[in-house]
Amino acid sequence: MTNFFDRIADRSAKVGILGLGYVGIPLALSITRCGLPVLGFDVAQERVGQLQAGSSPIRHIADDEIARIRQDGFEATSDFSRASECDALIICVPTPLNKYREPDLSFVEATMKSIAPHLRAGQLLSLESTTWPGTTAEVLLPFISRAGLTPGEDFYLVYSPEREDPGNANYHTQTIPKIVGGHTADCRKAGEALYGTFIDTIVPVTSTQAAEMVKLLENIHRSVNIGLINEMKLIAESMGLDIFEIVDAAKTKPFGFTAYYPGPGVGGHCIPIDPFYLTWKAREFGLHTRFIELAGEINARMPQYVIDRAIEALNGQGKALRGARVLALGIAYKRNVDDMRESPSVFVMELLRDWGAEIAYCDPHVPVFPPMREHDFDLSSVELTPETVASYDAVILLTDHAGFDYEMIGENARLIIDTRGRFPPDGKRVWRA
Amino acid sequence: MTNFFDRIADRSAKVGILGLGYVGIPLALSITRCGLPVLGFDVAQERVGQLQAGSSPIRHIADDEIARIRQDGFEATSDFSRASECDALIICVPTPLNKYREPDLSFVEATMKSIAPHLRAGQLLSLESTTWPGTTAEVLLPFISRAGLTPGEDFYLVYSPEREDPGNANYHTQTIPKIVGGHTADCRKAGEALYGTFIDTIVPVTSTQAAEMVKLLENIHRSVNIGLINEMKLIAESMGLDIFEIVDAAKTKPFGFTAYYPGPGVGGHCIPIDPFYLTWKAREFGLHTRFIELAGEINARMPQYVIDRAIEALNGQGKALRGARVLALGIAYKRNVDDMRESPSVFVMELLRDWGAEIAYCDPHVPVFPPMREHDFDLSSVELTPETVASYDAVILLTDHAGFDYEMIGENARLIIDTRGRFPPDGKRVWRA
Repeated sequence: MTNFFDRIADRSAKVGILGLGYVGIPLALSITRCGLPVLGFDVAQERVGQLQAGSSPIRHIADDEIARIRQDGFEATSDFSRASECDALIICVPTPLNKYREPDLSFVEATMKSIAPHLRAGQLLSLESTTWPGTTAEVLLPFISRAGLTPGEDFYLVYSPEREDPGNANYHTQTIPKIVGGHTADCRKAGEALYGTFIDTIVPVTSTQAAEMVKLLENIHRSVNIGLINEMKLIAESMGLDIFEIVDAAKTKPFGFTAYYPGPGVGGHCIPIDPFYLTWKAREFGLHTRFIELAGEINARMPQYVIDRAIEALNGQGKALRGARVLALGIAYKRNVDDMRESPSVFVMELLRDWGAEIAYCDPHVPVFPPMREHDFDLSSVELTPETVASYDAVILLTDHAGFDYEMIGENARLIIDTRGRFPPDGKRVWRA
Repeated sequence: MTNFFDRIADRSAKVGILGLGYVGIPLALSITRCGLPVLGFDVAQERVGQLQAGSSPIRHIADDEIARIRQDGFEATSDFSRASECDALIICVPTPLNKYREPDLSFVEATMKSIAPHLRAGQLLSLESTTWPGTTAEVLLPFISRAGLTPGEDFYLVYSPEREDPGNANYHTQTIPKIVGGHTADCRKAGEALYGTFIDTIVPVTSTQAAEMVKLLENIHRSVNIGLINEMKLIAESMGLDIFEIVDAAKTKPFGFTAYYPGPGVGGHCIPIDPFYLTWKAREFGLHTRFIELAGEINARMPQYVIDRAIEALNGQGKALRGARVLALGIAYKRNVDDMRESPSVFVMELLRDWGAEIAYCDPHVPVFPPMREHDFDLSSVELTPETVASYDAVILLTDHAGFDYEMIGENARLIIDTRGRFPPDGKRVWRA
């Protein structure tokens, strides 16, 4: 077993990354840069081919970064039997929710099934996917035990949550401190050795369960704070106050306050999903996660609130939403990215369609409405000119990309429903939502 | 009316401060330091006498600071007719809740009644007490109108919330940015002129209502984040996880997370009270403040949770809480201060008494249990020695003052119930609560 540490130390340890997406690819970049050979696994043949050809499947990662790691030894494959070549295996697959808001661990389980026959003594296995406290011990361990391996004796089992923040200009994989929990103390030490080669700061915790809980707490904190400010928005608006002015003023307090801003809902792969992993697990202990459920309820209702305000604003001009021509501005889930996962803009667009509006959208980062599992729109981004903006009955600002010409929009739109506080509201032509 | 600005500019404007407590006294210090004469008003004759004699009624403010401002022209009085001498009047009285968790504005109203006959043209009146959005316009304005004065014409009406944080080593009155909202734009400008003489950064907002809401949002944010982490503590403990380890690890994330720690409840004059001012006002608009109410419920239940854990821990040793000798460590509402307002420690002590425990306490900042409106204990702080610590059936750490000798306590206590994460829990002798 000392062999593992030697191979880490001399940079000969091969690292397998299972799942080549928003987490796996940045990880492959960081590890390859530090001189360890990386073998990437993905079931999607097309993605594997793309990476092998040196091009990037993710917009915010440039092709030449992929081309460079290809030259430095990075390889992608769909052949999971090659897991046996690796000294360390890191699982970075999605952990979504099913329709009943229960954890869907099918990607993790399918990955474990694919690699189980190829696990061998001396390897390290690390799970990075966000999940409930207990997953590593309850779900991964049985696969390892059935393979005749014992973590801490002839195998290392680790949980180390990903903390990727796509589009963050200040921090990237290497500079974001990494939580590492081991199934045993030796497992944790092996995890620290592995991650310590390519990440500046390692934060060891006492168990895989603790590491799992840390990640959930981070995203629960965000979900609840966004839910709170969304509720405060409804109250402020009913009192005739501008929540954006209130938040901007409150954040001048130099201690004890952190600014969160309201919006049309929550999106991305983390905030709308992760907290409910704890909700589900807590039921086993007879407990309710009341803040999580309240935040989920309020955040999930925000798209309908935007519709309510659009109806009210159009009504003020004697128009119904049915038949109205409505332009949605910004459909990615956050500013200046092309990521559409769980975007609340899409929920708003679906509600607009249900209500009979004629919908168009503009998003400089999403030129064509992409295929999505749950949503279907046959639309392309329209060009913003004074004439097109003026041609819609209402313009709804959903994601405030830096690329929009707000002055031009403000001057030409007939009616603005603003979920981002970009336009001063007047209760006639410009409405907050 | 330009006279007001001239008198501010040449530092001849006299400032009246109504209410000489945790907010009024630091304000008097800051204003006097900037060269403006200050006249302090309080109904409590004893406090007025104390200040006139150059001694401080507040522990964290030294006597010589009071003596110095007395020399520099500060004067205290109970004669509210002298309000007419002042160019500016600043109200800093408490705004508590009644038993039904409704706003109790009696101190503000009593102050207004006392000064109303003595208001005159050219004066500025500023309210600093935390209150619901609308108070300045709905409660203060009628007094001013009845006095024949019109804000913005011959009078200035301002709301500017206090942001005092007693014991904060990094910020004090002068360096904490100050929110200023005016009844009219001219009122706001007068408020900016006044506060700008003794506070570094002024943050103007569009109305008194906006300024009122800003302060509530700040404390709602804290209350909800503390409530959330208290709920997370209950869940983490049921799963065998240490919430303090989880929070410490989560806060290594360099963005998107702010650490809050659980405790035995919430205390002080702000967090348990202020949020419900919005709850009450929101009812007028048919709205519920669900996050505030959930946080209030969870935070208010924490003292009982501490008791539950004490019962469980004692039960593990075959003892009942009735008749047990219990030592409460730390009874001020936060670390390293003597402030007992709304301290959750006192609620824990009351529950202990109700359950039949024999209670003692130790708090280096509170040598004798002070007279309190709602609580009554005839106790003095006991001295902590290895023998005394070992003589109690259980020690409950409630407020983790820096002055405690944690090593000695950890070595000698028979049973520790730790609400602050100071001792590593073992589920036998040391319990988290």
